[in-house]
Amino acid sequence: MTHLDEQAVADLRWGAAVLGAGGGGDTYLVTLAARQAVRESGPVPLLAPHELDDDALVIPVACMGSPTIVEEKLPGRTPLVSALHRLEHHLGRKADAVIPVLAGGMACPCAVATAAVAGVPLVDADGAGRAVSELHMTSFCVYGLSASPFVLVNERGDTTIIEALDELALERVARAVTYRYGGWSYVAGFPLQGRQVKETAVLYTISFAVRLGEQIRAAGHDRDAMLAAINGVTTNSTYGPCHVLVDGRVVAVERPGGRASPDGSVLVQNQYGRMLQIHFQNEFLLAEAEGRTVASVPDLITVIDTETLQPVQADSLVYGQRVVVTAIPIPGMMRTTEALRYLGPRYFGYDLDYQPLEATAAGAHGG
Amino acid sequence: MTHLDEQAVADLRWGAAVLGAGGGGDTYLVTLAARQAVRESGPVPLLAPHELDDDALVIPVACMGSPTIVEEKLPGRTPLVSALHRLEHHLGRKADAVIPVLAGGMACPCAVATAAVAGVPLVDADGAGRAVSELHMTSFCVYGLSASPFVLVNERGDTTIIEALDELALERVARAVTYRYGGWSYVAGFPLQGRQVKETAVLYTISFAVRLGEQIRAAGHDRDAMLAAINGVTTNSTYGPCHVLVDGRVVAVERPGGRASPDGSVLVQNQYGRMLQIHFQNEFLLAEAEGRTVASVPDLITVIDTETLQPVQADSLVYGQRVVVTAIPIPGMMRTTEALRYLGPRYFGYDLDYQPLEATAAGAHGG
Repeated sequence: MTHLDEQAVADLRWGAAVLGAGGGGDTYLVTLAARQAVRESGPVPLLAPHELDDDALVIPVACMGSPTIVEEKLPGRTPLVSALHRLEHHLGRKADAVIPVLAGGMACPCAVATAAVAGVPLVDADGAGRAVSELHMTSFCVYGLSASPFVLVNERGDTTIIEALDELALERVARAVTYRYGGWSYVAGFPLQGRQVKETAVLYTISFAVRLGEQIRAAGHDRDAMLAAINGVTTNSTYGPCHVLVDGRVVAVERPGGRASPDGSVLVQNQYGRMLQIHFQNEFLLAEAEGRTVASVPDLITVIDTETLQPVQADSLVYGQRVVVTAIPIPGMMRTTEALRYLGPRYFGYDLDYQPLEATAAGAHGG
Repeated sequence: MTHLDEQAVADLRWGAAVLGAGGGGDTYLVTLAARQAVRESGPVPLLAPHELDDDALVIPVACMGSPTIVEEKLPGRTPLVSALHRLEHHLGRKADAVIPVLAGGMACPCAVATAAVAGVPLVDADGAGRAVSELHMTSFCVYGLSASPFVLVNERGDTTIIEALDELALERVARAVTYRYGGWSYVAGFPLQGRQVKETAVLYTISFAVRLGEQIRAAGHDRDAMLAAINGVTTNSTYGPCHVLVDGRVVAVERPGGRASPDGSVLVQNQYGRMLQIHFQNEFLLAEAEGRTVASVPDLITVIDTETLQPVQADSLVYGQRVVVTAIPIPGMMRTTEALRYLGPRYFGYDLDYQPLEATAAGAHGG
């Protein structure tokens, strides 16, 4: 069993940002909370999925809501664990471990912080292998498990427990509650048996994110070293080799719904005039070049700022920004027919079937 | 101990409609469900508050949401009791009795139906003595009790359990959940000890509503007999003598927010040209004549259609309708400083202090 110490949590942040694919919320403040929790409570044991007993109780946790709002509500110790503790109380049983609902974005450090404060191990797996924007898109739901009972807690301690007959209904109620909570909530749900984690989670995603972050840190301010490092980590993982889609400059950002809308598109042009258009809805979902799809959800499209060498959130893209756009294949677990029903491009309104990145990005490598 | 048989439930409907003060939802369909439940399960024992053990568990129940929507969703047996059963399960204890959250409108027959299906007695009391539009306006909350845990169930069986630090927060989340449920939910909350019922509920309101309904039925189509009967019942109760404010015709209905808005005003003119203006926000809240307030919330303003001799909902008023407008003093429990904080005219945005009906309506008797 390995442990996540404060450095690992700091590194995890950047891996989680890559898996955020432009969404999932800014990892900055939640990582501060997670680092503080680890500093106070000690390193968090990271359990490999096979180390779990089949009948262990594993509780997925996350935070939910508007990433913009959490920036005004620095997470404290008590709210971080209260969703977990309320669900334990409701189930009449203590959790043997927690697991992030999703590895992409702020949910991942949120789960680390929860594990640290609660004093339970974290499982090296998650329910998406990336950021997803709705609960029914998680692998837990995709493979037939229920998200109920699902607990939401706000920073005051108001608590709501939802039991719904299906995940679309649960998602709707949970969003409405989060909105009434002021746009931000800590959540715990989908109580899983150890066996169910092994069968339905996307495995080894936390250690993958930590390694990715380590390598990004090790590359320092050397852009080529960073891209090579990312490629090295992804190649030796359940993901797969990272593709560079374009290296250039943002020449247009469109948000038809206005500045606060999470939907839009961005146009990136390289020095030879080659254009890549990326469509986003919370996350980057579809990349097109010369009228051809080069990458699409559920594969990971990540935009990295070449000045800061940090992954960029879709909501912070600006005209003139220098960026390199990369794509990483998602693990096979999220490429099945069942998974593509809610995670394929068609679900997001694009009129095309999913093609694996390995096929579409061939020849798209752009300098 | 008396029992509510099918006839009593049928009569209760009209008493609950008077206590609805123009709001609280149409009692028709819920009464059908309650009558059917009593037909199948037998008469419902009606417990006087003093018959309750001090440590009995009494659970307030109601239905919540848009009265328009329930008309498309005829209540079935299972959803009626599932909010109660879910709360019992959450508390780990069976209820000894149920009580309506509010006596006005559809919540009252809903509680009768719940008691019948669940096979538990109904307490002869409620948390308002009338219809109120928000949870924190109930006497339970006014006198310091918490509405948490509060359970909402929809007709499919989706369940949400809310625990909130204050009743305004609970109200906001409960409304949002009800909206996501399609605008309609069955609720159970405010778990009470028998002692707390005796201290914070408005007492003997169910038997009052049944007597009122009986007398309205007995008066048949004789308008003067009906008004005399209502006056007789209210005079011999914790309410007080009924006042006739005007007997005339609707000469204007205004809904500045549009036809679907629950807010507006109505102007009633009698044969001598005397005008009464009634302002409503879900319920009738304020009646003015010649620039003078003649009745206001929390006293009960009720509009009775003089053709059908039935109380009229504020949302169904139409130009030309012949009506008699009556007002009934609310029991003292809802006239205290604590109660008026959320139930006085000022809370609803009217710039005036509450004056008891007995003072304001003097001399306003209009033929």
